[in-house]
Amino acid sequence: MSILTRPILEINLNNLLENYFMLAKLAHTAVPAAVVKDDAYGLGAEIVAKMLYDKAGCRNFFVAHAVEGQKITKLVPEATIFVLQGVGEDSIEVFKSSSKLIPVISSPLVLQFWLKNKPDNRKPAIQIETGLNRLGFREDELAALSSQELEVFGMVMSHLACGDEKDHFMNAHQIENFERLKKIYFPNILGSLSASDGVFLGEKFHQNMVRLGAAMYGINTAPYRQNQMKNVVCVKAPVLQIANLPKGDFVGYSATYRASSERKIAIVSIGYGDGVPRSLSNVGKIFFKNNGHIAEARIIGRVSMDNIICDVSDVENLNVGDVAYLAGDFYTLDDVARDAGTISYEIMSRLGKNTRFDKKYIG
Amino acid sequence: MSILTRPILEINLNNLLENYFMLAKLAHTAVPAAVVKDDAYGLGAEIVAKMLYDKAGCRNFFVAHAVEGQKITKLVPEATIFVLQGVGEDSIEVFKSSSKLIPVISSPLVLQFWLKNKPDNRKPAIQIETGLNRLGFREDELAALSSQELEVFGMVMSHLACGDEKDHFMNAHQIENFERLKKIYFPNILGSLSASDGVFLGEKFHQNMVRLGAAMYGINTAPYRQNQMKNVVCVKAPVLQIANLPKGDFVGYSATYRASSERKIAIVSIGYGDGVPRSLSNVGKIFFKNNGHIAEARIIGRVSMDNIICDVSDVENLNVGDVAYLAGDFYTLDDVARDAGTISYEIMSRLGKNTRFDKKYIG
Repeated sequence: MSILTRPILEINLNNLLENYFMLAKLAHTAVPAAVVKDDAYGLGAEIVAKMLYDKAGCRNFFVAHAVEGQKITKLVPEATIFVLQGVGEDSIEVFKSSSKLIPVISSPLVLQFWLKNKPDNRKPAIQIETGLNRLGFREDELAALSSQELEVFGMVMSHLACGDEKDHFMNAHQIENFERLKKIYFPNILGSLSASDGVFLGEKFHQNMVRLGAAMYGINTAPYRQNQMKNVVCVKAPVLQIANLPKGDFVGYSATYRASSERKIAIVSIGYGDGVPRSLSNVGKIFFKNNGHIAEARIIGRVSMDNIICDVSDVENLNVGDVAYLAGDFYTLDDVARDAGTISYEIMSRLGKNTRFDKKYIG
Repeated sequence: MSILTRPILEINLNNLLENYFMLAKLAHTAVPAAVVKDDAYGLGAEIVAKMLYDKAGCRNFFVAHAVEGQKITKLVPEATIFVLQGVGEDSIEVFKSSSKLIPVISSPLVLQFWLKNKPDNRKPAIQIETGLNRLGFREDELAALSSQELEVFGMVMSHLACGDEKDHFMNAHQIENFERLKKIYFPNILGSLSASDGVFLGEKFHQNMVRLGAAMYGINTAPYRQNQMKNVVCVKAPVLQIANLPKGDFVGYSATYRASSERKIAIVSIGYGDGVPRSLSNVGKIFFKNNGHIAEARIIGRVSMDNIICDVSDVENLNVGDVAYLAGDFYTLDDVARDAGTISYEIMSRLGKNTRFDKKYIG
């Protein structure tokens, strides 16, 4: 028996790399780029970017903010790093620090700012609106650009709204818009429409560059069928204490769970402070491995900042120090997200941004 | 007009300090301790701990994990730092690095581990179970301790389950248990029962030490009446783009919003990657200040990782680069949490753990 205290985040870089290759192969007519924004969805942008650069020859990366790109420029020296949130007064200095940082420009005002402040003649990308109604030049704004302005750009991109629903009408609508607008305004530069989800929609959606993010990290971006990606993230934490819960006793904050019979409970050293959704209170599951068998325990009471309590009455041979699994190969973050009422992207991006997590990289 | 890209997290240290003094005064018969676990609820443990040490003379701190304590030992050299998650094989070396780190021991097994591995004779605290059914010695476990073992401890503590509900029966139940068990087993050492919420329940609950956390950070831990705490956190982000949304158009992932009439929308540079709950999709609010007037806009479509879209049809004089408020003095994280279906603790702990946030400390 061990006495342990810290939650553990295991990140399987081998599987991440395999996912990258699998997606790149599926979209083999396009250049694969890796999306490492939000600290590589919380998994560590520096480690992920460097591995993909060294082992997969990845030479194109996407981040949201220039400061995120700045953290990896030296690790991926020959690569191009696209900055999705564009450029402004609060980031132009960062762009000056490296010619590898390429702003994605999404509006006429930002274009004017870039033309006035650009440090050199690197060619930005342009984002165009095709149906998501998020960032991007609207059609009338494209029409208002001079031919000189149109020639500023090195790539044209857009983003799918419903790429995770194979037959959604929006997909056809967006590809039609993208190809039509590209043909009119940017016939001679590279085009990029799809993130991970679009990779599964067929070659038409791949265009010249695909932006591999969620699926590379193991998320099922094609939930209309079984996940084809390898799992990357495993979330574990030790059992700190096992106790009897008398019949009639309450558990956790606001006493939201009451024992209808005597139960055995385990207190596990992880909580919402570590990124576990508090919405798993009284509904989430925790797993224990016992001689190859996986035993399931229900979370009872509220998830608190540092601890989760679960009902282990039916878990055999459990000891203090044993490892509780919150997510792993057999119950992925997609499954956890379903229980929590959200998407795995949100959970993944919150895990491990805490020094108290013991982060372990496999591979 | 400015062109800006980064979200901003403003942390008002002056208000935090005032809250500390206000709570310490309310519980003036007890020693005030500051809870800085989870990186001070995400606000920066090093900065918060050092300020309270220097400006308020705070000499007792609580963290969850030993590694969290280790980060502040040098900043608060004369202080005692209690470690709530106890001690184990994965943290004993950290305890050896500083005699100021005091484990809170919650079970007989951890006590045995400590007695076998302790680096010196520092006195740990003991956590006892009084109704929360989380970590802590159960009564039968206390009864089984030898008088020698009982003398190991320097403080006895427990934690309220329903301290934020003034008249909850659990409060009377827990204080009765705490005082009874303390009298039997630990009559001569310090006792600590209450976190912020218990401070508002009266002197009886203050015992010898109060653990000031949530309320110090501005959270209303007494939600049965108006918040008496000063607001500490302000979350802002620039408008990246303003666009017309044609009647019938959809917005965001999965096309969950459709415009029933032509609308004006703003794309704001913040998302769930920054800690904004995705559950604010289609329900949350965003605010704009205009000549002292506060205009409200509704979040439409899904909150995405880096961006939020809101309906600004009724917001006057709005420009790209203007600051959108997600939380501030007039709409606190408690208000946001109500919209998001969670508690402000969870949101606060997720904000700012991202390098792309521009963190600004006031004071």
